[in-house]
Amino acid sequence: MPAYAAPLREYRFVLHELLGLADRQDVPGFEEVDEAVVDAALEGAARVAEEVWAPLNQSADDEGCVYENGVVRAPSGFAEAMAAWYAGGWNAVGVDSRWGGHGLPGALASCVSEMAMSANLSLSTYVGLSMGVAGTLMRIAPDAVRQLYVPRLLSGQWTGTMNLTEPHCGTDLKLMRTRAEEQADGSYRVTGTKIFITGGEHDMAENIAHLVLAKVPEEGEGLAAVSLFLVPKYKVNDDGSLGPANGVSCGGIEHKMGIRGSATAVLHYDGAEAIRLGAKPKPATAGDGKEGKRSSSRGMAGMFTLMNAARIGVGLQGVALAEVAYQNAVTYANERLAGRALSGAKFPEQPADPIIVHPDVRRMLLHIRSFVEAARALSLWLMFRQQLAQRSGDANEKQASQDLMNLLTPLIKAHFSDLGFDCANMAMQCFGGHGYVRDHGMEQFVRDARISQLYEGANGVQALDLVGRRLPADNGGPVQTLFATISALLEEEADKDELADFTGPLKSGLERLMQATMWLAQNAPQDREQAGGGASDYLRLMGTVVLGFIWTRMARQALTGLEANPGERDFYEMKLATGRYYMARVMPDTAALLDRVTAGAGTLMAPEAAWF
Amino acid sequence: MPAYAAPLREYRFVLHELLGLADRQDVPGFEEVDEAVVDAALEGAARVAEEVWAPLNQSADDEGCVYENGVVRAPSGFAEAMAAWYAGGWNAVGVDSRWGGHGLPGALASCVSEMAMSANLSLSTYVGLSMGVAGTLMRIAPDAVRQLYVPRLLSGQWTGTMNLTEPHCGTDLKLMRTRAEEQADGSYRVTGTKIFITGGEHDMAENIAHLVLAKVPEEGEGLAAVSLFLVPKYKVNDDGSLGPANGVSCGGIEHKMGIRGSATAVLHYDGAEAIRLGAKPKPATAGDGKEGKRSSSRGMAGMFTLMNAARIGVGLQGVALAEVAYQNAVTYANERLAGRALSGAKFPEQPADPIIVHPDVRRMLLHIRSFVEAARALSLWLMFRQQLAQRSGDANEKQASQDLMNLLTPLIKAHFSDLGFDCANMAMQCFGGHGYVRDHGMEQFVRDARISQLYEGANGVQALDLVGRRLPADNGGPVQTLFATISALLEEEADKDELADFTGPLKSGLERLMQATMWLAQNAPQDREQAGGGASDYLRLMGTVVLGFIWTRMARQALTGLEANPGERDFYEMKLATGRYYMARVMPDTAALLDRVTAGAGTLMAPEAAWF
Repeated sequence: MPAYAAPLREYRFVLHELLGLADRQDVPGFEEVDEAVVDAALEGAARVAEEVWAPLNQSADDEGCVYENGVVRAPSGFAEAMAAWYAGGWNAVGVDSRWGGHGLPGALASCVSEMAMSANLSLSTYVGLSMGVAGTLMRIAPDAVRQLYVPRLLSGQWTGTMNLTEPHCGTDLKLMRTRAEEQADGSYRVTGTKIFITGGEHDMAENIAHLVLAKVPEEGEGLAAVSLFLVPKYKVNDDGSLGPANGVSCGGIEHKMGIRGSATAVLHYDGAEAIRLGAKPKPATAGDGKEGKRSSSRGMAGMFTLMNAARIGVGLQGVALAEVAYQNAVTYANERLAGRALSGAKFPEQPADPIIVHPDVRRMLLHIRSFVEAARALSLWLMFRQQLAQRSGDANEKQASQDLMNLLTPLIKAHFSDLGFDCANMAMQCFGGHGYVRDHGMEQFVRDARISQLYEGANGVQALDLVGRRLPADNGGPVQTLFATISALLEEEADKDELADFTGPLKSGLERLMQATMWLAQNAPQDREQAGGGASDYLRLMGTVVLGFIWTRMARQALTGLEANPGERDFYEMKLATGRYYMARVMPDTAALLDRVTAGAGTLMAPEAAWF
Repeated sequence: MPAYAAPLREYRFVLHELLGLADRQDVPGFEEVDEAVVDAALEGAARVAEEVWAPLNQSADDEGCVYENGVVRAPSGFAEAMAAWYAGGWNAVGVDSRWGGHGLPGALASCVSEMAMSANLSLSTYVGLSMGVAGTLMRIAPDAVRQLYVPRLLSGQWTGTMNLTEPHCGTDLKLMRTRAEEQADGSYRVTGTKIFITGGEHDMAENIAHLVLAKVPEEGEGLAAVSLFLVPKYKVNDDGSLGPANGVSCGGIEHKMGIRGSATAVLHYDGAEAIRLGAKPKPATAGDGKEGKRSSSRGMAGMFTLMNAARIGVGLQGVALAEVAYQNAVTYANERLAGRALSGAKFPEQPADPIIVHPDVRRMLLHIRSFVEAARALSLWLMFRQQLAQRSGDANEKQASQDLMNLLTPLIKAHFSDLGFDCANMAMQCFGGHGYVRDHGMEQFVRDARISQLYEGANGVQALDLVGRRLPADNGGPVQTLFATISALLEEEADKDELADFTGPLKSGLERLMQATMWLAQNAPQDREQAGGGASDYLRLMGTVVLGFIWTRMARQALTGLEANPGERDFYEMKLATGRYYMARVMPDTAALLDRVTAGAGTLMAPEAAWF
């Protein structure tokens, strides 16, 4: 059975050394946040993840969820493991204390949630979505509603879901058929079928709060008619007690490649009682050019906020699975004997050397590690920077950090889930044929990691979002902020010889990214297919460069650590070695990616559809 | 359920147009081979693959193989489907007619075997291995043995297996523990445990012929002691009738990520009666420097020939799965409606356009297609060229074609299986979330394709074989043959403007491949880790270039076809468009790959093992 140990030293490096998160008691809300508090939270969550969650990962995959007569049974042990997580408040590390959370920095909460995902991705989906729903209700539900729902969602008494997809439409929400009809009392009734509802039905909570997108037909056509509704599985009385079943039934669950412990439900809404979230749109005035085009309602905006948060979470799933797969690959590479080091036997007393002596095995391990450490650091850096700016109230910094987060959200989702899958797969490759055998658990990591490239908007859609919406937003302000941030680092470190292995490749990568951006700016406005054709390669190009940026920052920090703390020489040397691998062996991809973006969409669009 | 239609037009393009295979009645043995014969074989095999094999692919995955008390039950329908294949002689298309085969060119047999693998990879493994065993026995078994075994293996009455791996060793065969003891009558008894034996036990044949590597302890140490043995499941009487069970028992089967219809057995040999294949080694003379280093016995050489053939077959599994996954992705992309073409609605009368209008979907489809067509053509070209040379007896051409085949065998295994997996995965990505649901069958293609990167020597081992053994062989003669072959094509087509999209990128790719080769030649002899550290990237670099080479040849042929056969304009235009995609969007990888090879092994070897 695979093992998992939370990478606490890595978390501490990023949180304490790179971000200085425990030195910001000057910031409102972080007055109590010191190293001891942070470390205690990391260690407490790690114990539950390692000892309670991880041991259930493989058995849950074997067992799967079971659907019978409308009821879904989660895998054995899940309810208890989920209760243990909620009992420690590990679901609510970052939640404001006025809602009963720990009120700790979001970057710390992200580490805790990464542990949950590494230990048991299936189980983490129930908790993650419930917290997303709680957060949405905190922001946009009427006070009476959130007082009823939020505490119960935070305690794990209830769980929550997001309902977007229908059998015939996913990404293209304007094709949606589920409809909501207003009742005389101002409530709504929702009717339609939703599919791919993660945690849509199960036996681990008393109630389930479904956030449902549905059309109010009289309010417009297509997307303009779509609003957000809260539909509980059981009706909720004013005192929070449960009433009778609402009109929601589970029509079945999907049999999937992976995350088999996560119930992916088909939900039929049959005039289910619903609460509208956010105000009704103002009716469009005839002739004002906004017919059928109203600005997003607060409800839809709430859903988009939730979707953006979910995208970051899905990106981190890639990091989490690559991390746990890496750990097991290292163990195997140290134990499995085959062949001899090319430079001569390292363990002549053994019949063969462990395979970690082989350069190609090290290549795979370093590749995974160079992704995991940078991806984690980048997302924590973005989160912490944004949260600091929000709390400190510096308007420029608030704009800059918000710009970066907006720009990079689809990139985190797609690039991290793509690489997370590739890396889980590479870790499996280290096992040779044994990786293909279910007992070792490596192939489960691969199957589980695969979902993140698909849900929350398939990665091609993320790329189009980046190139089509986020890049041109605000006249390119956000991407200029990114370029300026990277350039500033390069200027700061220009003379530091010991960082030349980093700054050199980063500079080339940035130049290529700027060229590709310029090419898109020049070509996409006249021909949107140029944006679509280059989108995925552009996203990967930007992703490769931003991870190179954070590697350069980590390398600088590691040099400082090496000097300040020679007792941990191995840790810092490995940090630098891993970064050097990235700069020498991953950054060169930027050349090919630039070539692909600027190759244009002509070769893609030339063939007639029938020729395929 | 996914569908499969054999790509007959593609086969005909390669066999008839690119290779002119049906115009070589001048070659001994091919006197009867004309287009009609070839097409009839393709169509006959296609019918069985499409109508009998493919419909069982998904149910066999669900059902798996079942092990109970030493007996393995293959999935429902497999025995009948296998019988249908043998009844048509589709297993023996390329087998010499004196053994009862069709005696048709190996390249045609390869197309037929690709169909089997596309339709049902699990089922194809039983047949493929049995044919490999039959071929080995034809070559190296004593006549009495092959007269008994070969006809029964060719008819499907018996099947065959390869036994190399043991629980503690796979690639490193010198660690093998299975031993063979000579008996007074010259027979042997084999004792030990073998694992990962594909088709090692099942209920579809009367007997199973196991080819087993085992050590004869008194003949040396390590690899020098290893010889090849034939061990039947049931003892065989001189008239071919079956005797009692031999000392081979099945200890279980693996539960695997994919190819779940293929029984992967643990086999215990307990003094099983065995026939040695190939002569005993001559005893080493003390002091001649060859102690423990004897040259491969004929038996081992026979196993290596089988292993090389199996590697080509495994590479083609990647092509076969990418092909069938592609077909289903195209169907879905034409049916699924979402969004609008970026250049404006293509089907304004429908609620949305089919997703094949989107550049990023086309990118994925063209990517798969550009791999499949080139990989298939390259392997068929190599096979046909080699077979022609063998039959025509031209010594130079024989050497050249043998050189290319030797050089490229590990590349075909690793590059094709790597890309086959990536492409199956990309085809699944075209389905969005639906790809993750088992019903669509796309995720099965991904799981099934994954094995080819692992078995028959994990791909990292193939890369080391290429760089460590095949590249330096004969003072680099084979790789010079490859360079000369590509250079000759570039010279021939230097002035052809209509091929400039091909020859330009091919020239750059070849230059980079030559630089990487030079770098290895200069650095690897002093420091073998430089070879090991660059091996995988070098293999991919060479693979990218040789597929660019065959694309250039196919493009030339397509231009000819366009002129000669304007009625098939769409076919040839699509061929050219697909090739242009490859040259514009895949060949640029060669720059990054060269950078990686020449980055050296330093970054890989720097970290101490304990730092990982």
